[in-house]
Amino acid sequence: MICSQWFRRKISFLEKNVSWADARTVVFGVPVDTASSYRPGARFAPEEIRKVFECLEDYSLGLDADLLSARVHDLGDLILPGGDPRESLIRTEKVVSEIVKQGKRPLLIGGDHSITYAPVCALLSNGYQDLAVLHFDAHFDLRPRYLGEEISHASVIYRIMERGVKHIYQFGIRSADAAEVAMADQNTRYFSRGILSALRRTIPELGDRPVYVTVDIDVVDPAYAPGTGTPEPGGITSACLLRALALIRNLNLVGFDLVEVNPSYDHAQITAVLGAKILREAILILEGGGELC
Amino acid sequence: MICSQWFRRKISFLEKNVSWADARTVVFGVPVDTASSYRPGARFAPEEIRKVFECLEDYSLGLDADLLSARVHDLGDLILPGGDPRESLIRTEKVVSEIVKQGKRPLLIGGDHSITYAPVCALLSNGYQDLAVLHFDAHFDLRPRYLGEEISHASVIYRIMERGVKHIYQFGIRSADAAEVAMADQNTRYFSRGILSALRRTIPELGDRPVYVTVDIDVVDPAYAPGTGTPEPGGITSACLLRALALIRNLNLVGFDLVEVNPSYDHAQITAVLGAKILREAILILEGGGELC
Amino acid sequence: MICSQWFRRKISFLEKNVSWADARTVVFGVPVDTASSYRPGARFAPEEIRKVFECLEDYSLGLDADLLSARVHDLGDLILPGGDPRESLIRTEKVVSEIVKQGKRPLLIGGDHSITYAPVCALLSNGYQDLAVLHFDAHFDLRPRYLGEEISHASVIYRIMERGVKHIYQFGIRSADAAEVAMADQNTRYFSRGILSALRRTIPELGDRPVYVTVDIDVVDPAYAPGTGTPEPGGITSACLLRALALIRNLNLVGFDLVEVNPSYDHAQITAVLGAKILREAILILEGGGELC
Amino acid sequence: MICSQWFRRKISFLEKNVSWADARTVVFGVPVDTASSYRPGARFAPEEIRKVFECLEDYSLGLDADLLSARVHDLGDLILPGGDPRESLIRTEKVVSEIVKQGKRPLLIGGDHSITYAPVCALLSNGYQDLAVLHFDAHFDLRPRYLGEEISHASVIYRIMERGVKHIYQFGIRSADAAEVAMADQNTRYFSRGILSALRRTIPELGDRPVYVTVDIDVVDPAYAPGTGTPEPGGITSACLLRALALIRNLNLVGFDLVEVNPSYDHAQITAVLGAKILREAILILEGGGELC
Amino acid sequence: MICSQWFRRKISFLEKNVSWADARTVVFGVPVDTASSYRPGARFAPEEIRKVFECLEDYSLGLDADLLSARVHDLGDLILPGGDPRESLIRTEKVVSEIVKQGKRPLLIGGDHSITYAPVCALLSNGYQDLAVLHFDAHFDLRPRYLGEEISHASVIYRIMERGVKHIYQFGIRSADAAEVAMADQNTRYFSRGILSALRRTIPELGDRPVYVTVDIDVVDPAYAPGTGTPEPGGITSACLLRALALIRNLNLVGFDLVEVNPSYDHAQITAVLGAKILREAILILEGGGELC
Amino acid sequence: MICSQWFRRKISFLEKNVSWADARTVVFGVPVDTASSYRPGARFAPEEIRKVFECLEDYSLGLDADLLSARVHDLGDLILPGGDPRESLIRTEKVVSEIVKQGKRPLLIGGDHSITYAPVCALLSNGYQDLAVLHFDAHFDLRPRYLGEEISHASVIYRIMERGVKHIYQFGIRSADAAEVAMADQNTRYFSRGILSALRRTIPELGDRPVYVTVDIDVVDPAYAPGTGTPEPGGITSACLLRALALIRNLNLVGFDLVEVNPSYDHAQITAVLGAKILREAILILEGGGELC
Repeated sequence: MICSQWFRRKISFLEKNVSWADARTVVFGVPVDTASSYRPGARFAPEEIRKVFECLEDYSLGLDADLLSARVHDLGDLILPGGDPRESLIRTEKVVSEIVKQGKRPLLIGGDHSITYAPVCALLSNGYQDLAVLHFDAHFDLRPRYLGEEISHASVIYRIMERGVKHIYQFGIRSADAAEVAMADQNTRYFSRGILSALRRTIPELGDRPVYVTVDIDVVDPAYAPGTGTPEPGGITSACLLRALALIRNLNLVGFDLVEVNPSYDHAQITAVLGAKILREAILILEGGGELC
Repeated sequence: MICSQWFRRKISFLEKNVSWADARTVVFGVPVDTASSYRPGARFAPEEIRKVFECLEDYSLGLDADLLSARVHDLGDLILPGGDPRESLIRTEKVVSEIVKQGKRPLLIGGDHSITYAPVCALLSNGYQDLAVLHFDAHFDLRPRYLGEEISHASVIYRIMERGVKHIYQFGIRSADAAEVAMADQNTRYFSRGILSALRRTIPELGDRPVYVTVDIDVVDPAYAPGTGTPEPGGITSACLLRALALIRNLNLVGFDLVEVNPSYDHAQITAVLGAKILREAILILEGGGELC
Repeated sequence: MICSQWFRRKISFLEKNVSWADARTVVFGVPVDTASSYRPGARFAPEEIRKVFECLEDYSLGLDADLLSARVHDLGDLILPGGDPRESLIRTEKVVSEIVKQGKRPLLIGGDHSITYAPVCALLSNGYQDLAVLHFDAHFDLRPRYLGEEISHASVIYRIMERGVKHIYQFGIRSADAAEVAMADQNTRYFSRGILSALRRTIPELGDRPVYVTVDIDVVDPAYAPGTGTPEPGGITSACLLRALALIRNLNLVGFDLVEVNPSYDHAQITAVLGAKILREAILILEGGGELC
Repeated sequence: MICSQWFRRKISFLEKNVSWADARTVVFGVPVDTASSYRPGARFAPEEIRKVFECLEDYSLGLDADLLSARVHDLGDLILPGGDPRESLIRTEKVVSEIVKQGKRPLLIGGDHSITYAPVCALLSNGYQDLAVLHFDAHFDLRPRYLGEEISHASVIYRIMERGVKHIYQFGIRSADAAEVAMADQNTRYFSRGILSALRRTIPELGDRPVYVTVDIDVVDPAYAPGTGTPEPGGITSACLLRALALIRNLNLVGFDLVEVNPSYDHAQITAVLGAKILREAILILEGGGELC
Repeated sequence: MICSQWFRRKISFLEKNVSWADARTVVFGVPVDTASSYRPGARFAPEEIRKVFECLEDYSLGLDADLLSARVHDLGDLILPGGDPRESLIRTEKVVSEIVKQGKRPLLIGGDHSITYAPVCALLSNGYQDLAVLHFDAHFDLRPRYLGEEISHASVIYRIMERGVKHIYQFGIRSADAAEVAMADQNTRYFSRGILSALRRTIPELGDRPVYVTVDIDVVDPAYAPGTGTPEPGGITSACLLRALALIRNLNLVGFDLVEVNPSYDHAQITAVLGAKILREAILILEGGGELC
Repeated sequence: MICSQWFRRKISFLEKNVSWADARTVVFGVPVDTASSYRPGARFAPEEIRKVFECLEDYSLGLDADLLSARVHDLGDLILPGGDPRESLIRTEKVVSEIVKQGKRPLLIGGDHSITYAPVCALLSNGYQDLAVLHFDAHFDLRPRYLGEEISHASVIYRIMERGVKHIYQFGIRSADAAEVAMADQNTRYFSRGILSALRRTIPELGDRPVYVTVDIDVVDPAYAPGTGTPEPGGITSACLLRALALIRNLNLVGFDLVEVNPSYDHAQITAVLGAKILREAILILEGGGELC
């Protein structure tokens, strides 16, 4: 791969790491958190999620699928310049573009939520102009600017909208300022409760449209995922999120990311283990989803 | 205000702190835990809840209401004599009396549960003899004495009953000794499960009666609120408690307290953030409730 | 009792510790974790659960029963040779045999899950050949070997099956490898979700058959029980488990264990307090269950 | 013993607990911290110190003496009324009086520093009017009042001075207000640094005078003893304190206490283990010291 | 003050906060850590150090001086754009320039070590071209670039050198790469051990030269200051650092900063309390030092 | 290498990992702790020490030597059977034998102290019958048996003595039972304090004799190394241990191990970072030591 010099040499968390050539899904870590406003530490998520992966089984009881059969390649974690979030986004976008150009699906392990901007841009520039984004989060992330920054974890969906993504679905939202609610009322579909039934209604609308999924771990209640930057009480259970992932397995998934896991505020690794399980399920649903165009 | 010398100078956690004269709700902290039997630390709750408040939005998606419009004044935290719980109660009662005499509604941030005795007495002495108390807790707090103490976190509802409050409703109770169950069977209405449906049945009974609400954070399961003095497994979710608060918004609320948040046993501040969110919702429902008499 | 020299002198966690002669239930700790593959520390569970027991009431609101009336004797915690898991199992089995021979019911506080092998063998050898095992766990524990070990926490149900137990019911299972699923499809009854309704269907099948219950705390979600060796997201709530125990109170229970509580990964003691509450309910349902054969 | 109903039944941390009649030293815990101004939790020290005692050897390499030969009796921990510090002091004083009247030496495990007032009063009332007090602490504790309280951890040495103790030696002091320095200049001997050489100069002055030793764990630097209520940087090492105890072994020691260990702020139990080692050395030097008058 | 809109409204940690006009020393927080390479969290230091300040006395026993007499003004903490370290430096430099132009001395609470560049530039631009820098640190911070960044915590002394500061003294250095050693051999005076005697030799050399002091908390051993970004074993004690500050009190001090305290990795607040004590001593030695030119 | 199938595939913590053929020093992890009596968790040390290695420099200021020039090969971590300590020792001994037979020096990262038995046996069997052992520890480890086990962390030096090693030097010992002191008086040279001067006296005695060094991290005080199984107050500083390693650099070192680092009880990774620094210094002194015979 062209950008391989940007990756830290690491043995994969995968028991079986297929070659770049054979892979349909390509996973890599984006250890950056300079865009975090409240509690930094998301930069440690890729390393910690890889570490706890060994306490998981390769087989998913929920999806009846086995990681050992998945055509997934692990690139390792990106080496990023600490104080320069823009350069981090540029590198991430280049890597995703290369993945997408090869007809493969990117799977990113964040990092803070600002990173989602990079893969969405890469997909938009590589033939997926009618992309839909499924966004699982406690927050809208719809601010035009946040603390003076244009690209922050609190404005990433606004930026994506601005880039022309028209089909944005937001699940689990339970915190906002009044301006964001107004913005969402105009521009997105959002659901605060009942996310499984909301998904069941949404899936038929999506049809064959290419779908990018972004999961901010804070969509889950802080009881289940304390290790995150801006915990928001009143969220869904981890069981509910895992079931949601099973529901969307037959969509035309073209990319996925998991963001805002923050090991510095975790305990007993429960957030990291949840992150690892979401990662495993993501690999399996990317594998089993519809054909790429 | 007369008792202002008792308050520690603090900048308010409120973005907009209206003046004493303009306020309908007056909030203050009561950092005392000398009545804790098992794990002290509730004294740190007002400071910690104020600190984490900044990671919350001012707007409540659940109540569709904005803190920036609330007529709320923050007095800061009471300065209390460490080893003298009785004097702490006397000071707290004087402050609440002054608030109530001005036709305002008190909102207290504990501290341990013994503090609830003070505002209830102040309300009884200032024209609210037919007060109803809505009590959210894992425990009855109906012991005549506890470890030799008359006014303790385990006997506060008994004391309130003794002072003549006849309408006591207890929600979320799941721990008791046999004598307390007998006491409750005679003197209170209590519900262990199904608290939302129980509330829906209770609300019509209350009508226009003035209502004081006391929330012991341990009504919520320790998974959602580990930072508390006597954790009791098998509790409700934080989402359920937040919904309960929305249900009672149209009652004639005349006071509110949140007690037993204990930052010393919290992690990742999840209990403190939950406490801050309850506090925000409490301000909003006190604001939006019926007219004061 | 014969093996009393094996027990560490400890004052009981019980307010009222009846004599060996008068007891129907006999409780003891098995502080061993050499069979843990991932995170050791379950050895500390008996001590920690005893310690936090004091913050619980003796009366159970859920079962309407009082520990002060229970005929339960506490032997203390077994002294075990650190590096020799086989010898630990031998001692445990001898103690259980002595309990069972006296017509009493054993209640074990683990320790890791490998210890369950000992009481089941003791029951099989003492007249309970048609024993049913109710197994609450996130994992099947159905591996023939694990990391080269025959008797490990991951193979204990396989070993029990091998010893001839035909009636194995598994509740809460949500992690497995493919071989275990195949094994379970052939040999056990298992339920991933809906465990209360599954139990309601199972109870009539069991009739008067003698039943041994083994509870691996990881059946509960890591949010409610972070202090365990191999946390698995997507589990049941603690309220659900407590209700499950109430449902089985009228079965012919002949033994019970609670395993895999790990204080080293707990916080705010929430897992230990849950363990203590399970222990209290277990004593009460062993007390109130059907007559021993 | 008369007051035995005040003690919680506990098995001793001592491998060999000699009878009350045979004992020369009597140890008990005073789990109280209502007088703590900053961080509560010292109430848990007796239980935690007893628990970690098992990782210590009975033999002291520093003193070349063996705990198995010591004539020491462990009474357990006092049961104290949570919210009433005065009653706690009265009970503690009664217990110490009884110990002293029998010609035995008291050894107290606090609890906060206010408890020291009780044994000193008991000694003054039982024939030790010319008592000297050796005080190891980061703070003078010489305030006439503290936060409105007369008997607090910050005023205990003032109170002792007021009761007529003329020979007060203070070691390790490194924090004060200006009034305390003036008070100490007039009334005590104090040393901020070089405590071993200071002790070597002090010991000959003391001669046969009866000596009471009180050790506030915060005399040791927070690096060595983080688990305490008011940590003060710049302190001595634990090795230095242990050597200081060896130096005073031949004084006429008539009582000893260790206070302000706070398990709630400890980590990896390092403060508790240090407390346990101080306790062991204290037993051995009380045993080996001069004859009682 | 001109830049007052940049500061977060906060009540000062100072018991007595003199006015801007009357102040000789001006203190403010710089909560930034985007330049941290390894463990972020230094952004929380100003808030945490302010919080724990209340457990310290105003009087310094080591300096025999009282904070209540100090002419110090507290500006609060700078509001900084999260993801833009350059803009943070610009704002910080402007604030310091304004302080210096008024003949006052700046005292900064970091934040990571990159912030030191701002006050040094401000001093160089305002008449202190012959400034000497006393640098207490475990690391040289002499890298031309670090992880692609020019202004990082690992290159700040290089940048300062590049700006023309010729008198750089480095104390406590115990970690380096080979290039940094060569750089230091050519350009700075540095001392790995014996920092008190090194200071005694250095002080006469400095004479009346204006001196800026920068303290990276990791100069102290991780045992005494675990809460920092890149802990380096083998450091000095906190007592040694406090004594070093007393030694330099008569130098012509024109500015001071304390950096790299990281509350996210602290425990029992021991690093924060040490930071608060250094801050108190810094105010007192800035107050008592020589006349400003 | 023959036993390569026993090693977990891992990328080395070394920036430059020379080939097996070119290496003079061979490093590997032995993640085992089944022989721990008190607090398990040493099994996690190799992984954690590798992880924190990245915050260290390759260059050692203390030794003026660079890891980039060292001829060191990293094998990774042994895969060991969890419940079978004997088999773990056998595998470890085989690996060391292979290393020694090739004229290379083994460097082991434990694991608990029992592992030291394996490399010493391998050296004795491969031509080093007159081996001297330098033992840095808080404990003698001279018990014939411990809790029924022959090969435990508390008996490892006894076992080594029994195998015929005559030259055993013990530094830093400060805890023992009386029998161990008697044993040591007869059979070893030991030093409780002044270990640097003791080493200076010892080094000339050793001459060219082959020397094996074993460092139990608990030789360092718990303030500096809280993450260990049996913390013992009163120890040396980490600076002192690092200086001791520099002192022995010219001995004929033929092997080295670091044991009993326990990440489960560490905080802010200070013990792990100290372990990593010891490991770096060990590689450098093995590299620079005398010629192998």
